[in-house]
Amino acid sequence: MNHLLVAAAVAVGITAALPAAAQFQKPEDAIRYRQSAMFLQNTHAGRIGAMVNGRVPFDAKAMAENAAVLEAVIQLPFAAFIDGTDKGNTRAKPEIWRERDKFNAAAAKAQEEVAKLNVAAKTGNLEQIKPAFGAVGQACKACHDDYQKPL
Amino acid sequence: MNHLLVAAAVAVGITAALPAAAQFQKPEDAIRYRQSAMFLQNTHAGRIGAMVNGRVPFDAKAMAENAAVLEAVIQLPFAAFIDGTDKGNTRAKPEIWRERDKFNAAAAKAQEEVAKLNVAAKTGNLEQIKPAFGAVGQACKACHDDYQKPL
Repeated sequence: MNHLLVAAAVAVGITAALPAAAQFQKPEDAIRYRQSAMFLQNTHAGRIGAMVNGRVPFDAKAMAENAAVLEAVIQLPFAAFIDGTDKGNTRAKPEIWRERDKFNAAAAKAQEEVAKLNVAAKTGNLEQIKPAFGAVGQACKACHDDYQKPL
Repeated sequence: MNHLLVAAAVAVGITAALPAAAQFQKPEDAIRYRQSAMFLQNTHAGRIGAMVNGRVPFDAKAMAENAAVLEAVIQLPFAAFIDGTDKGNTRAKPEIWRERDKFNAAAAKAQEEVAKLNVAAKTGNLEQIKPAFGAVGQACKACHDDYQKPL
């Protein structure tokens, strides 16, 4: 399917226009939704990290593709931390719902750093990408440290 | 986070530039990756379907957002049907690997119909969206009928 390189101009809203409660049929759907998005993010961030750390050779095209996917997907999970989804198969800490503004700010920070990484990735210059990826890692870790139960 | 409406111009490659085998650490990671993408797709397609079928009121903005996310995410799962991932926690049929060209064509058909749906969604005209969504449903179902084991 190499011929199918698709350029999609995507406008992604963090919150869709429908009320959050109407977006998921069951609480476990919301949990699985955000875990799915996070797993995709982790995969693409891992590919970027492997190039940043020299474990695989730097490939500017792959870098740009992975950063673009990461930016698109990180728009998705945070709308799924709806009320009633702090229990069950989730590592989400109750602090998410207790200090919502702080959580939202941490999520927004991660999104902003990913947006900057995507800009850096488009330059094809690894020396610009490295610090941008470092900032993404710090933002992700800060949010996980505060709001995700350890395994 | 309503203020964070992000417009991301995303160029997504179906296959990234790295060899597929290098993309996932373990076969189960590839399986979870494609299942994650499919779950996101199912969620957003479900929201579109609810509006198309009149179960929730039509909202042009929500429709456009969901279609845009659907188009971005459906670029992802098919690169994860790599060799060695036909076993384990997966409903993928072995026919995917036996008749790869046919599978790729079915996947591409679904992507094409989703792209058309996204164009229709941007018009805000539900009468254009309805048949486009029907074609998406048919393309998804055709691929699942042929290549996904029933529950």
